[in-house]
Amino acid sequence: MMAWMNEEAWKETLQSGYAVYYSRSRSQLWRKGETSGHRQQIEEIRVDCDADTILLKVHQKGAACHEGFESCFFRKVNAEGTVAIADERLVDPAQVYGKKSS
Amino acid sequence: MMAWMNEEAWKETLQSGYAVYYSRSRSQLWRKGETSGHRQQIEEIRVDCDADTILLKVHQKGAACHEGFESCFFRKVNAEGTVAIADERLVDPAQVYGKKSS
Repeated sequence: MMAWMNEEAWKETLQSGYAVYYSRSRSQLWRKGETSGHRQQIEEIRVDCDADTILLKVHQKGAACHEGFESCFFRKVNAEGTVAIADERLVDPAQVYGKKSS
Repeated sequence: MMAWMNEEAWKETLQSGYAVYYSRSRSQLWRKGETSGHRQQIEEIRVDCDADTILLKVHQKGAACHEGFESCFFRKVNAEGTVAIADERLVDPAQVYGKKSS
């Protein structure tokens, strides 16, 4: 998955040992897995050459993706540019995030 | 490494089978490895759930990083937030990109 951090998210990630992002749409910290339980335990942190991108190597509990796949990158692009699902769905998002009551 | 694409870069990546990015600083296509020879041959392309991030799995010839490492993520962040080089430098950037004549 790809997500954003601000300084607070970065510090909390280091301190807690779990991935914490910053939701730009909600303008708040996003403690990944807080609702779903699908937390990301940090195994290793790398930073790139110009120090503006962070790579987290994590132990992913359950599905990282809100669509129920382990990875958000569950779709493969074929040579001609068509797209197909290439991974198994692990969980039903409706079960994880809840259904709206009717 | 993390880099940007525009539509032209994306199309040329698909067509050529090699990674092509868009340099935002130079406002032009960046055919990765055109100068250094360190091209990235595409092995697989994935696209994420909201279709705004592309993951390229590539065969990296030589060093992807302009600092001479295979990956730009050659620095590891330790638990207390300190940073250390964790990989081997493959090439001398001055040899790859040329020295300025004196």
